Amino acid sequence: MMDFGLVGFSGKMGKVINETFAERDYRMVLKVDGSTRSVDGIPKVIIDFSRPEALPQTIDLCVRYSSPLVIGTTGLDEDEFKKLKELSKVVPIVQSYNFSIGITLMIKMLEEFSSKLSDWDVEIVETHHVHKKDSPSGTAIMLRNAIKNDVKIHSIRIGGIPGDHAVIFANDGEVFEISHRAISRRAFSLGVLRASEWIIDKKPDFYKFSDVIYG
Amino acid sequence: MMDFGLVGFSGKMGKVINETFAERDYRMVLKVDGSTRSVDGIPKVIIDFSRPEALPQTIDLCVRYSSPLVIGTTGLDEDEFKKLKELSKVVPIVQSYNFSIGITLMIKMLEEFSSKLSDWDVEIVETHHVHKKDSPSGTAIMLRNAIKNDVKIHSIRIGGIPGDHAVIFANDGEVFEISHRAISRRAFSLGVLRASEWIIDKKPDFYKFSDVIYG
Amino acid sequence: MMDFGLVGFSGKMGKVINETFAERDYRMVLKVDGSTRSVDGIPKVIIDFSRPEALPQTIDLCVRYSSPLVIGTTGLDEDEFKKLKELSKVVPIVQSYNFSIGITLMIKMLEEFSSKLSDWDVEIVETHHVHKKDSPSGTAIMLRNAIKNDVKIHSIRIGGIPGDHAVIFANDGEVFEISHRAISRRAFSLGVLRASEWIIDKKPDFYKFSDVIYG
Amino acid sequence: MMDFGLVGFSGKMGKVINETFAERDYRMVLKVDGSTRSVDGIPKVIIDFSRPEALPQTIDLCVRYSSPLVIGTTGLDEDEFKKLKELSKVVPIVQSYNFSIGITLMIKMLEEFSSKLSDWDVEIVETHHVHKKDSPSGTAIMLRNAIKNDVKIHSIRIGGIPGDHAVIFANDGEVFEISHRAISRRAFSLGVLRASEWIIDKKPDFYKFSDVIYG
Repeated sequence: MMDFGLVGFSGKMGKVINETFAERDYRMVLKVDGSTRSVDGIPKVIIDFSRPEALPQTIDLCVRYSSPLVIGTTGLDEDEFKKLKELSKVVPIVQSYNFSIGITLMIKMLEEFSSKLSDWDVEIVETHHVHKKDSPSGTAIMLRNAIKNDVKIHSIRIGGIPGDHAVIFANDGEVFEISHRAISRRAFSLGVLRASEWIIDKKPDFYKFSDVIYG
Repeated sequence: MMDFGLVGFSGKMGKVINETFAERDYRMVLKVDGSTRSVDGIPKVIIDFSRPEALPQTIDLCVRYSSPLVIGTTGLDEDEFKKLKELSKVVPIVQSYNFSIGITLMIKMLEEFSSKLSDWDVEIVETHHVHKKDSPSGTAIMLRNAIKNDVKIHSIRIGGIPGDHAVIFANDGEVFEISHRAISRRAFSLGVLRASEWIIDKKPDFYKFSDVIYG
Repeated sequence: MMDFGLVGFSGKMGKVINETFAERDYRMVLKVDGSTRSVDGIPKVIIDFSRPEALPQTIDLCVRYSSPLVIGTTGLDEDEFKKLKELSKVVPIVQSYNFSIGITLMIKMLEEFSSKLSDWDVEIVETHHVHKKDSPSGTAIMLRNAIKNDVKIHSIRIGGIPGDHAVIFANDGEVFEISHRAISRRAFSLGVLRASEWIIDKKPDFYKFSDVIYG
Repeated sequence: MMDFGLVGFSGKMGKVINETFAERDYRMVLKVDGSTRSVDGIPKVIIDFSRPEALPQTIDLCVRYSSPLVIGTTGLDEDEFKKLKELSKVVPIVQSYNFSIGITLMIKMLEEFSSKLSDWDVEIVETHHVHKKDSPSGTAIMLRNAIKNDVKIHSIRIGGIPGDHAVIFANDGEVFEISHRAISRRAFSLGVLRASEWIIDKKPDFYKFSDVIYG
């Protein structure tokens, strides 16, 4: 049983997070969206998947309830990161732009092992829905950085695919591939769940999502 | 039991063709390579996987033995095609630049069915070894032509991959994919075998490999 | 602009259908669920994704509005099919247990082309979420029937995968694969949309979903 | 430039190893097969891909030339391993039943990381040619052992596929897959090459192939 607060509860990710937590009988005792706020208990953790403008209020709530923070809001600027660092002296924070457990694992594996295949060829293929604006995807760029190499990225844009990523290595005799596929937004809400359950007994600090998985 | 002749018997494809035919106890009774020639019986079919320069000799042999011809020699010019057309009045000929059964099927399926997915997105991914010079592959271009569309082709060049091709269709709710992978040169020698067994009782004409599969 | 009626509007498929139709500015002028019914115009087509018990009411509505019917309700018995056949003398009906365009195409392709690969090996792999009760999936069985063969089916049950199906053919030299992946329930709502747009100007008859695609 | 000896030079693996080494201008100065033996210099490394019966002769040659040994001969019994261990006090030895770099990496990754996905589902799919006698493959069993779990293995047997292996993890929102495909016997000869280049300056000991990759 874990009571939680959710900033951005009516957004697309907010809804999925609430759904995922409700399945565990976790109770949303604090919900915030823009100027809407309702409180029904003390949250053990606050989750923020909203907009940078909401940050001051979120920080205020974390301080008031001594509540750890899990934040996935995108587009934070330097000043906002500074405020989060400040807050992390008082409560533990997990901040990430990507709460996918699989992608986090994939990056770690590549960082650790791709040097073993330095004499192999490698290319990346990523597939997303046609409405995606950026190309290559931010995730594909993170994967390339993990390989520390000038890797070619192929970006396929078709239909409604939530997000596939494949890193394909090959030498003359074999092919080795690591791939990931997001089924739905639950790819991320399950990561938020793991981060929330992990952080409640941590000491104040600024954590990344990979700390949750490997910490 | 089928006696056959093989022009270009010591080339890479020649060796694989001989191996594939030998497994069926088919006997190579005529073998030619450059100026080397040895005869040990009357061929029921002659196979030519050599070079355009060898064509006059091949034609001469087909006429002498009244033998059907299966020819996969690449780089034939207009004049050489004319000579083959002439020959096809006397003996049946199967001519193709690609004897893969799967690729032939894939092209046929796309020609027949891709119009049903005209409101879906579609892209092609082809993967070959790093030594391949052309990009996109000739096969990928044939696949695109079969879709009759301005389809994007992604060309991956890694390791020693003999040749993979995938045509991926998607709409907002589903993905539909047709894909092909060459395991080895046997992809082609088994097609040559099928063409050879098919042609021995056909009447003189100029056939394509798709006639062998769908004829 | 197409006004439609929806029986089972509050069910999981009902919601997705309404969402998909609303994106085209199609208006739900009749909605029914159990004893709930609200009418706001004359439907040009009625869609029923509910339960067999609702059938008499649906038939009544189709007759009253002279409305074509698209029905995906599962578990219909012989008697219910008889009633639908009766209704199809008055209004056109599309009935199917699977409105996926891709799966319908896949089955058609296999029926038409798998005989060309009769000397190849073939196996089927289907992957679904762990909560799926039947194994192999009904779709995998339809695919096997389309091949007319004693094909081995491998059923993988992992995570939340909505439904993947692959038919893999191989001979000694090549691999040929046709595969399908459902991204979400929109796989089916887009098929229902196509059926609805197709049926509005058809003459009374009992149609299958493949008639919509190939008719 | 590296002179090498090859026991079993005329076997299937022997031929591929010689081909792979010859491409680097490495010279086969000692070749052995059954009672055939020819010597043309001092080998810097001896490779044995033959039969257990050849082991005494191989050991004798390693001692005579103070040559490191790379051995992939299968079916060694306890006594033969004992002799190899004895030899490894004098010269360095790499012994393995699988010289695939990719499979070795895959096993290491699974040993290290699969615990991070302990609450995910996981299944293994392996695909091999129809002539393969064992099912599941020895490699699939090694992969399962690396996960330390009761993982279901699906064995597909079609056509001439040299060997594909996939480990598929999924939770409710995402799929994570590690896969490997052998293109040809070069999958192994390139591993033998790496082992041979690695071992020539090592001190006497009994090494596994994973020591070559991670040592």
